[in-house]
Amino acid sequence: MNPLILTEPDLRARLTLDAPLVDLIESAFARLARGGVVMPPILSMHLPDMNGEVDIKTAYIPGFQGFAVKISPGFFDNPSRGLPSTSGLMVVLDSETGQVRAVLLDNGYLTDLRTAAAGGVAARWLARPDATRAAIFGAGLQARLQLEALTLVRPIAEAMIWARDPSRAQALAASLTRPGLTVRATADPAEAAAFSDIIVTTTPATQPILMADWLRPGQHVTAMGSDQPGKTELDPACLARADLYVADRLSQTRLMGELRAAIAAGQPDRDHPELGQIIAGQRPGRTHPDQITICDLTGTGVQDTAIATHALDAFSKAT
Amino acid sequence: MNPLILTEPDLRARLTLDAPLVDLIESAFARLARGGVVMPPILSMHLPDMNGEVDIKTAYIPGFQGFAVKISPGFFDNPSRGLPSTSGLMVVLDSETGQVRAVLLDNGYLTDLRTAAAGGVAARWLARPDATRAAIFGAGLQARLQLEALTLVRPIAEAMIWARDPSRAQALAASLTRPGLTVRATADPAEAAAFSDIIVTTTPATQPILMADWLRPGQHVTAMGSDQPGKTELDPACLARADLYVADRLSQTRLMGELRAAIAAGQPDRDHPELGQIIAGQRPGRTHPDQITICDLTGTGVQDTAIATHALDAFSKAT
Repeated sequence: MNPLILTEPDLRARLTLDAPLVDLIESAFARLARGGVVMPPILSMHLPDMNGEVDIKTAYIPGFQGFAVKISPGFFDNPSRGLPSTSGLMVVLDSETGQVRAVLLDNGYLTDLRTAAAGGVAARWLARPDATRAAIFGAGLQARLQLEALTLVRPIAEAMIWARDPSRAQALAASLTRPGLTVRATADPAEAAAFSDIIVTTTPATQPILMADWLRPGQHVTAMGSDQPGKTELDPACLARADLYVADRLSQTRLMGELRAAIAAGQPDRDHPELGQIIAGQRPGRTHPDQITICDLTGTGVQDTAIATHALDAFSKAT
Repeated sequence: MNPLILTEPDLRARLTLDAPLVDLIESAFARLARGGVVMPPILSMHLPDMNGEVDIKTAYIPGFQGFAVKISPGFFDNPSRGLPSTSGLMVVLDSETGQVRAVLLDNGYLTDLRTAAAGGVAARWLARPDATRAAIFGAGLQARLQLEALTLVRPIAEAMIWARDPSRAQALAASLTRPGLTVRATADPAEAAAFSDIIVTTTPATQPILMADWLRPGQHVTAMGSDQPGKTELDPACLARADLYVADRLSQTRLMGELRAAIAAGQPDRDHPELGQIIAGQRPGRTHPDQITICDLTGTGVQDTAIATHALDAFSKAT
C-alpha cells in the first residue's frame, strides 16, 4: 500500500484550531500519564555553519493506529532569503507493522496547531473557570493561536497584547478584535499582567519577560516559548510565588523549560505534577480560586502523534 | 517548491549496485575523516509490545546540497503477516535552508545498496589486490549484494556460501553462479573460511560464527552483520589475531560492532583507524600481502546522506 502524501494546503483545508482538537491533545496528555507511552529523548542536530538546527521527535502511544516521527528544521538565516525559518514534516508509521502510512508535508502547520491546543488544555485544567481577561506576551503566530485557544475553553472577553515591538503588538491586537472580544496592545508588560486572569508567554526570550511581583492571586500563567536550554520567559521567582507548577513533561522542562532556569537560579527541584497526571486524575490541579498556577510547555512527541493520526483519520473518513 | 516524492520502484529503476556507487560511498567515508561532518548519535526507539524498533540516523556533510534523515523501522512479527520486517524511508533536507527537498519511499532499498557498497569500499582498501576467492557467511539479501560488491572491486572468480540453513546457501549459490563466477555452498564454515581471500559475514548472529583459528595470512574479513549491542559474528580472538582492525566509525563499533564484543571479552581497546581515514591517507591500511585485516561495518548516516543526495541527482539530471 502506498503511503498517503498530504501537503500543507491539504492539511490547512481540513484541520484547524477548534474544540475537538483541544480535546484530542488533552486525551494525548492523559495517555502520557497513564503509561505505556514510548517517547525517546529528542534527537537534536546543531549545524552552526548554517545557523541551523534539526529536532526529531517521536512518541508511540498504546492504542493509536500510528505514531509520528516529526522532523523540525530551524534555519535562522532563511528570512534573509525570503523563506520562513522553520519547516519540516511528519512521517506516520503503522503501530503494528512500522510501515509508512503517511507523509504529512505540513511545514510546521501541525506543530503550530498542537502547540496552541496544548495552551487550551493547560487553561482548561488550571485557569479559573470565570477567567475573562487574557494577556499574551509576544506578537507572532503562537500569540494569535494561543489567544484563539483560550477563547475555546474560557469566556474570554478582553485581551491585552504586549510585545517587544509595539507596532507588531498593535497590528495583532487590531486583527484579533471581533464582536465579543476586545483586544488592545500595551507597551507595559506589567500592565498586561495586572489586567489579566490568564497570561500566556509565547516568545523566544532568553531573559525573563514576566516578573514574579507582577503576579496576583487567582492568575494562571502558561509559558510556552522556552523549548531549548538557552530560553526562558519567566522570572525564576515566579515558580516560587506560584501555588502550583505543572510541566508538560517533567524530564523535559527540567532540561529546556522554565523549570531549568529556575533550578539554575537555585530554586529547589520537586516532584511537580505533569499536565497529563492532572487530566488523568492522578494529581490535583487548581484547588482554590485564589491560587496562582503555572504551566510550562516545552512540546512533546505525544502531541505530534495525536495530531498526525487525527489528520490521517480526517482524510480517511473523507475518502 | 514541492518536495520530490520518489517511490521504491522509481528508485529501483534508476539506482543499482555498481562501481560509481562504490566510488560515491568511498568519498562519503573520506569526508567523514576530513571533518566538518555532523552526525548525531542514532535515535533508537524500542517497542517491545510490538516486537519492533525504529532507528533514526542523520548526517550533515559539508559540501553536499542536502542531508538525509533516515527512518528505519524493524517489526519482527511482520513475516507472519506476509510483510517484510524492515521498511522505512529517507527525507532529504536542503543543507542551506533545512527545507524538505525530497521524500524517498525506498522501504530500505537505499540502505541495502549503501551497505553493500560499503563492503566494496572495505575490500577495495583492505583486501589483497589479487584476491580471487570469496566466502560469504549468510544467505540473505546482503549475502547476495556483498558478493556482487566484491566482484566490482576485486577479480573474484570463485565464491563459497555458508549459512545456518544449508538449503538457503545452496539456493543462493545456484542463483549467483554465472560465466566467470563459480559459487558453491558448504555446510562447513571452516571450509569456507579456509578457501577464501576475502570473508564477508552478513548475519544477525548473536554468537560467533567465524573462529580466529580458521584465519590465515593474507585474508581480509568484513563483518557487516552486527549493528546492535546484542549482535556479534566474529570470535573476539579474531581481532587479536588480525594485523589491522578498521572501523567504519569507532565511536559506533565500540558500542554495537564486533569491537564491542571483543572489548567485552577482555581485549584491549585501541585507537583503531577508521575506513575513511585510510581512504583519506591519514592512516595506513594494509601494508603487506600476508597481513590479516578486519573491517567492522555498523552503518553510518554519511552513507545515507551520500546515497540519498545521489538519488536526487540521478532524478534531477533525468528531468
